[in-house]
Amino acid sequence: MSSAGSRRGPTGSVTVRALNLLEVFSPDQPVLTLSEMSRLTGFPLTTVHRLAADLTAWGALERDGSGRYRIGLRLWEVASLAPRGTMLRELAMPVMEDLSQITQENVQLGVREGTEIIFLERIGGKRAVPVRTRVGGRFPIHASSIGLALLAFAPTVVQDEVLSRPLERFTEKTITSADELRRTLAEVRKRELAISDRQVTMDALSVAAPIFSRPGVVAAAIAIVVNAETAQTTALSQMVRAAARSIGRALQPGGLTARGQVGGLSR
Amino acid sequence: MSSAGSRRGPTGSVTVRALNLLEVFSPDQPVLTLSEMSRLTGFPLTTVHRLAADLTAWGALERDGSGRYRIGLRLWEVASLAPRGTMLRELAMPVMEDLSQITQENVQLGVREGTEIIFLERIGGKRAVPVRTRVGGRFPIHASSIGLALLAFAPTVVQDEVLSRPLERFTEKTITSADELRRTLAEVRKRELAISDRQVTMDALSVAAPIFSRPGVVAAAIAIVVNAETAQTTALSQMVRAAARSIGRALQPGGLTARGQVGGLSR
Repeated sequence: MSSAGSRRGPTGSVTVRALNLLEVFSPDQPVLTLSEMSRLTGFPLTTVHRLAADLTAWGALERDGSGRYRIGLRLWEVASLAPRGTMLRELAMPVMEDLSQITQENVQLGVREGTEIIFLERIGGKRAVPVRTRVGGRFPIHASSIGLALLAFAPTVVQDEVLSRPLERFTEKTITSADELRRTLAEVRKRELAISDRQVTMDALSVAAPIFSRPGVVAAAIAIVVNAETAQTTALSQMVRAAARSIGRALQPGGLTARGQVGGLSR
Repeated sequence: MSSAGSRRGPTGSVTVRALNLLEVFSPDQPVLTLSEMSRLTGFPLTTVHRLAADLTAWGALERDGSGRYRIGLRLWEVASLAPRGTMLRELAMPVMEDLSQITQENVQLGVREGTEIIFLERIGGKRAVPVRTRVGGRFPIHASSIGLALLAFAPTVVQDEVLSRPLERFTEKTITSADELRRTLAEVRKRELAISDRQVTMDALSVAAPIFSRPGVVAAAIAIVVNAETAQTTALSQMVRAAARSIGRALQPGGLTARGQVGGLSR
């Protein structure tokens, strides 16, 4: 292993290289050959071959009928123990199902990871507007209502980092001015509610509420996404706020914070 | 790394040891200290310390407020790309939601991994009987209807392995005789339907249907779990069969098999 190790210096340990091999898989490329993995990681083919063999033996990778590699079910199984992933989702699911059944609209659950949001769950409504999210997918934090709800309660250092960078424009309504985003976040903190009105796509409006695991500490956010033309924001706001409070209660005692403690989740 | 490597011989590569460290986490122990990980793996504390540092730097592990370790959201994110995990679940979810809304009962989705089943999804019904499953959790294959549906269409070598071992008893109705299990599996293959009547708990009856990705090849199974006292098995059977067919169509073309190919899933 040491010959490959010297390519990347002391930070490129074998463990990290094995993990780097896993992260070249993507929604667009869920199945890869060894040569593709070599090209995407920059690792020599012999290194990729050895790492892939180890990962496959354990089940972190699987091979398909044509010999190509994909992320394995064993990794999915272990990862389902992530307290901020499947376990938070499990607690939120009954409330999300209620909200989805009542409204027949899209209901989403997300957490913050650095300056991005990761969607933990999405329930599609019968008469729902198309949404751009994917479970396990990332999304910039400044456009969606879930992102705004999470960013508003993030540490100042995280907010400053987002505000210091160019804000990607998705529609003509996307907030791309740091000053305007700062004002919006202050409003979200005051109301404990975020609204994204055609800021992601021109047909969708979403309303999100932060989920508090304890006062002032936000573990996740829940949102409902509806057609912007017919949105009844007052009614939606009340329902989303109630859902967020209900999930927050389920997180206690101990609760899950964005980076903090976990407790009472051993079920 | 080589000193720790010599403890386990040539099969215990650094990659495999790092993965071994991940698999000591469990639903009962989702948060661990370094000493606990050392005890559970049998690895020296120095090895555990180094592996945990690498895994944490990448995000496969996270530390909580008290410095203990848990499975990280980054691992969950990468694992969500497993075609037989989140991606299969995403395709099945709309159908599962319909079935849950219509019946108000528990709906479950599972795949086979060796001689066990792994639950990919569970939607809880309003008036639902308590169930013993957890998303990402394992369960013996011979007791539940999902297990019977998957085992009936598994390769003969897998069936023989299950039939050659003692069959754990959960209730007085659990099938524990290899002959009886063999007859049951033949029946399941003929009807393309499995019924577990109080074989897991004395209050629950479940009906499962295999999900074919192509003729004869089963990718997963879907089940509905109801109160055994009031179960209307004929109506349930029809609904579950229809749901399985509907998900099977969504898997094509290419489809997902238990060990086979994946195709058309790059969304």
